[in-house]
Amino acid sequence: MNNIDKVKTIIIKKPLKLDCGKTISNFPLAYETYGKLNEKKDNAILVFHALSGDQFVTGINPITNKNGWWTHLVGPNKSVDTNKFFVICANVIGGCMGSYGPNSIDPLTNKKLGTNFPVITINDMVNVQYNLLDHFKIEKLFCVMGGSMGGMQVLQFVANFPNKTKTAIPIACTASHSAQNIALNELGRQAIMADSNWKDGDYLNLKNSPNKGLSVARMAAHITYLSQKGLQEKFGRKLQERDDLKFSFDADFQIESYLRHQGSAFVDRFDANSYLYITRAMDYFDLVKEYKGNVSDAFKKTKVKFFIISFTSDWLYPTAENKEIIIALNAAGADVGFIEIKSDKGHDSFLLEVPDFLITIKNFLQANY
Amino acid sequence: MNNIDKVKTIIIKKPLKLDCGKTISNFPLAYETYGKLNEKKDNAILVFHALSGDQFVTGINPITNKNGWWTHLVGPNKSVDTNKFFVICANVIGGCMGSYGPNSIDPLTNKKLGTNFPVITINDMVNVQYNLLDHFKIEKLFCVMGGSMGGMQVLQFVANFPNKTKTAIPIACTASHSAQNIALNELGRQAIMADSNWKDGDYLNLKNSPNKGLSVARMAAHITYLSQKGLQEKFGRKLQERDDLKFSFDADFQIESYLRHQGSAFVDRFDANSYLYITRAMDYFDLVKEYKGNVSDAFKKTKVKFFIISFTSDWLYPTAENKEIIIALNAAGADVGFIEIKSDKGHDSFLLEVPDFLITIKNFLQANY
Repeated sequence: MNNIDKVKTIIIKKPLKLDCGKTISNFPLAYETYGKLNEKKDNAILVFHALSGDQFVTGINPITNKNGWWTHLVGPNKSVDTNKFFVICANVIGGCMGSYGPNSIDPLTNKKLGTNFPVITINDMVNVQYNLLDHFKIEKLFCVMGGSMGGMQVLQFVANFPNKTKTAIPIACTASHSAQNIALNELGRQAIMADSNWKDGDYLNLKNSPNKGLSVARMAAHITYLSQKGLQEKFGRKLQERDDLKFSFDADFQIESYLRHQGSAFVDRFDANSYLYITRAMDYFDLVKEYKGNVSDAFKKTKVKFFIISFTSDWLYPTAENKEIIIALNAAGADVGFIEIKSDKGHDSFLLEVPDFLITIKNFLQANY
Repeated sequence: MNNIDKVKTIIIKKPLKLDCGKTISNFPLAYETYGKLNEKKDNAILVFHALSGDQFVTGINPITNKNGWWTHLVGPNKSVDTNKFFVICANVIGGCMGSYGPNSIDPLTNKKLGTNFPVITINDMVNVQYNLLDHFKIEKLFCVMGGSMGGMQVLQFVANFPNKTKTAIPIACTASHSAQNIALNELGRQAIMADSNWKDGDYLNLKNSPNKGLSVARMAAHITYLSQKGLQEKFGRKLQERDDLKFSFDADFQIESYLRHQGSAFVDRFDANSYLYITRAMDYFDLVKEYKGNVSDAFKKTKVKFFIISFTSDWLYPTAENKEIIIALNAAGADVGFIEIKSDKGHDSFLLEVPDFLITIKNFLQANY
């Protein structure tokens, strides 16, 4: 990826003990900001990105030259109004957009780490990003928010730092990764590892990357981000630039060429090893276990105002799983609001232009600032 | 696969024009039978298998040495009682259990056909299997039945040969393959084609097969055969022979090792090219299009007694899609019964020991024979 060296980073000097037992220090955390931090420093929103996201929330991503992943939601006069709020987003560790990850150089060997990078967790990601508060000298954030894996980071952040944000918006997520979601992530990992170019993760120092495997992983994931109904309405059995079936294995149907495109576009901007590490972190996420069977202990006495959002057609993180978070928050006596938004766009709804979602976020932020 | 040459076959001599335009003749159709055809020849049940099935419905499959795929349902004193009924099942063309398919030898080159095998359809499969009636001199079957792709063949059979069966039981299927199902099949095909051993399907004449790609395809499919709830109840976040997470990419969770096992066991009994051809046939299945927008025309004036079965947790062929078949049959004035069976076992329910399913089939067959 061109210009990756030019992304903004802070170097985290303080040693951090990871959940796996290893300690890391002096490593980069890539980040981006939008809007201005006010004098009182009370207008900062920390956004956490999902599996395939990065720090470029809105505007043009300078690496991909495409729109940021939350352009519908974040920007001047948008729901998360950057005329008013100071939005910070960091690339998670394990990622491939400038933060410490499998693409980083091992100073001992002068080669890219690959799978010598340690297995990290959502807890590790959040603990690293906490350093951004020190960096910007922010005593307390106004809000932490994110969808999918971003929502898991929201929950972990409040559990770890209960006094460091005023509000929290976990969207389309879970307190404990389900068996089906582990299965789907494992499928993606196996697709990557099945690619003969993967070479146990050492491809970074070689010529060819496991692009085909990563592309298959992305196709699999992409199907799960949509809904049966949404797919049927958008694609149905429409043919791709032809009048009839071709009786071959080319892409006869539009849904086939759409998926192939999703796969091949993804490999241009994402790294296969990062995909392995980040999905692993999601699978390891389990606040139920971390709090010995009682998630509400994670939020004991918290003063954070929560707002939980789920989508009707999201079968990856269905409303039922989001409600379990609410039950735990209620049991902890927390202040929690909830909305299930009607949408046929599946899990992807939080990334798309879903009017009810956009206005809901706008209202919540306005009412609580 | 050992002993594949020893399966029973008939040679179809009569030329058959396939939907793709090619004509085939003098090709093998592998089949198996259970029970005895009675003197009146009115006790025959033609069973159609699903994507990964074969002709070995019950008892021990002599090729895999494992139980037949419908052992719970079919056998002496079982729901489909082979003391009473004569059960016939053929391996579909395009398959890899002895019928004409990509594993067959091309007489012109003396090499295996691979992707020179023509793209076939559900209609082609059914037209080939119709020859079994001549072979056994059966004027009219008592029943045609099958689940998933087997159910599609049931529908196509009755549409093509409306007077050739007394009853029909399409289970967990559809009249028109949905966008989501095309997407999931395309994912499997791309996983196979991404394997560098696939070599455009020519691996059959070489040393290495695309086992890793086929294994990933199977894992993907297997997840879709189960249900979110079923997976959560059976596996949840249980660890695989360890006390805690290993912080590696080994199979930490039971669901991971289960899936890996499903993948690797499949490649021992299935051929990657057959997987491509059969999924393609499923994707092409569209009675709506074949009957110019009106599926009920497929069943005009049919006297066949239908019984449609769906399962509550089947999200691949949900009850709503099965109901569309009922609507079409009703519009054609057909005799049609329906049951939605409660099960947490997902699409796989039709292959598993689901008591309500087993008894439902038993009662229908008893009442109508």
